Amino acid sequence: MPFHDRPVFPRGFRCASRNIGLKPTAKDLALFVSEVDAAAAAVFTRNQFPGAPVILGRETIRGGRLRAIFANSKVSNVATGERGLEHARRMAAAAAAEIGCAPEQVLVSSTGVIGVPLPIDTIERGVRGMIADLVADPIAGAEGIMTTDTYPKALSLSLGEATITWVAKGSGMIEPNMATMLAYVFTDAALDAPALDRMLRHAVDATFNMLSVDSDTSTSDTCAILANGLAGPVDEAAFQDALTAGCLRMTELLARDGEGATHLLRTTARGSKDLREARRIAKSLVNSPLIKTMVYGADPNVGRILMAVGKCVDCIIVPATTSAWINGHEVLRDGY
Amino acid sequence: MPFHDRPVFPRGFRCASRNIGLKPTAKDLALFVSEVDAAAAAVFTRNQFPGAPVILGRETIRGGRLRAIFANSKVSNVATGERGLEHARRMAAAAAAEIGCAPEQVLVSSTGVIGVPLPIDTIERGVRGMIADLVADPIAGAEGIMTTDTYPKALSLSLGEATITWVAKGSGMIEPNMATMLAYVFTDAALDAPALDRMLRHAVDATFNMLSVDSDTSTSDTCAILANGLAGPVDEAAFQDALTAGCLRMTELLARDGEGATHLLRTTARGSKDLREARRIAKSLVNSPLIKTMVYGADPNVGRILMAVGKCVDCIIVPATTSAWINGHEVLRDGY
Repeated sequence: MPFHDRPVFPRGFRCASRNIGLKPTAKDLALFVSEVDAAAAAVFTRNQFPGAPVILGRETIRGGRLRAIFANSKVSNVATGERGLEHARRMAAAAAAEIGCAPEQVLVSSTGVIGVPLPIDTIERGVRGMIADLVADPIAGAEGIMTTDTYPKALSLSLGEATITWVAKGSGMIEPNMATMLAYVFTDAALDAPALDRMLRHAVDATFNMLSVDSDTSTSDTCAILANGLAGPVDEAAFQDALTAGCLRMTELLARDGEGATHLLRTTARGSKDLREARRIAKSLVNSPLIKTMVYGADPNVGRILMAVGKCVDCIIVPATTSAWINGHEVLRDGY
Repeated sequence: MPFHDRPVFPRGFRCASRNIGLKPTAKDLALFVSEVDAAAAAVFTRNQFPGAPVILGRETIRGGRLRAIFANSKVSNVATGERGLEHARRMAAAAAAEIGCAPEQVLVSSTGVIGVPLPIDTIERGVRGMIADLVADPIAGAEGIMTTDTYPKALSLSLGEATITWVAKGSGMIEPNMATMLAYVFTDAALDAPALDRMLRHAVDATFNMLSVDSDTSTSDTCAILANGLAGPVDEAAFQDALTAGCLRMTELLARDGEGATHLLRTTARGSKDLREARRIAKSLVNSPLIKTMVYGADPNVGRILMAVGKCVDCIIVPATTSAWINGHEVLRDGY
């Protein structure tokens, strides 16, 4: 897919970010706004200690329509109890007041330290006047959601008259399960919420859900898509392909910039019984500490590959017909 | 359980080890012999690329009687195809000839590099005359099976008239699944093979199967028990308790001496629905890279504990009634 050299927003989307003092100097607040109502869908972490923004987000997304995403970094509002949920609601209300929409049309995200109360007063004050800062550059918003990411991540591509734009952050505590870290997709294509939901899940399963930096699943993972329709209808199959391609590219950007990462490891599983087993085996390889140390040390070790495949005890593995390649070189043929 | 200050063997068991040139100078061959037939049981790795010694061992243990365990370190005889299996059989035959028993009464183990042919000629020559070296010190045998272990591991205790002795090696590629690395248990208690099998599985499930150094499951894991009966019958319940206690102590020795390990992490899960969920949650904690780095850095982080518990999506987790302690200090009460 031909991604733009410099990411742009679809028609009607803009964003802004600020430092409001949650971090010493870096941006810590981001606002993404559609000038008209957008159909929306989202998937969230399956971690059983979801943050307050995830609990509220599941409720918000049921409406299927959003005007904005409002996010802060530094503090995740996780393990903060009833008060945390109230803070998440106040956060949505503060952005809604600034934009002039209903709080139910604002999806909120928080990322950062777990177990610390959200500085909600600072955020309520901080969002005031932010509407005046809105720009059409997605990098501006990406800057506001960074934690230990080394650079802001945004991508975009054109699909006929429509544009699709991805903004995300990753880094540590990353093995998304049915979701990802914070990843937002914006498009001006005209698609309804059920279609977005179906297409987003399909794309996420093949991309963000196969990502692992450290095999640890965050409590804040959120992937949302907003479609404001300003570019009119699109071919759904083409949109699905483009959506998946952009999610895959963003997945690799997140993996490359994982906390402490020096290498990107891609695995390809062929000939497995079904997609579930292929994904299980590929994940076993990328999550194995002995495979990671092998890649880091640039020391190909077929025994570790065998081990990581063989420990998938719930998959059908036939040693005598198993072969393996590293960078195109066959290192194992028919089991040895 | 009162372990002996210096490990001893039960009546009728002796061992020897040698350097035969598989390693530059360290011991690389070990022979454990009972002077009379012993009832025996064993569990092996569930990795789907089992080594040739594991494939042969599953066949051997069906007889339920052993005279000896014969093991080499440095080369694991894994991913070596039909020839590897033939080498494992030749290894059993060579030890049997030296001892004067049937090859079916010798359990063989190999540990070390995967995918390299076993130097079977060297081993066949190396075992000759080894019977003359047999001593009653289990440390001698433990030395012969070391890979990157920093010291030889053996334990023993008395149970009435009987003695139970454990010899094991661990280090890397360690998250046993229905077995462990190489761990041998010797006793002069009189117990039949079915009882040994039942008690060994019970002990291993609660001990070696809960061990993790690096979350990677070896292709060679083997845990065997030999009971030669020379001390007469024992109370089975007392024997089970002692067997489990020794396996637990050995599990902690293996964890403490894990490759690169500087800390021992013990987790206790309480109030879970059943034992399966308790084990699942405890394993999620010890295998989490973010928990490991927290312990290594001595930086208690409640968010990482929540995360590791919450990512057990197949367990019942109720955040509002979840509490956590680190070294006896409550760090989380009722979810936050």
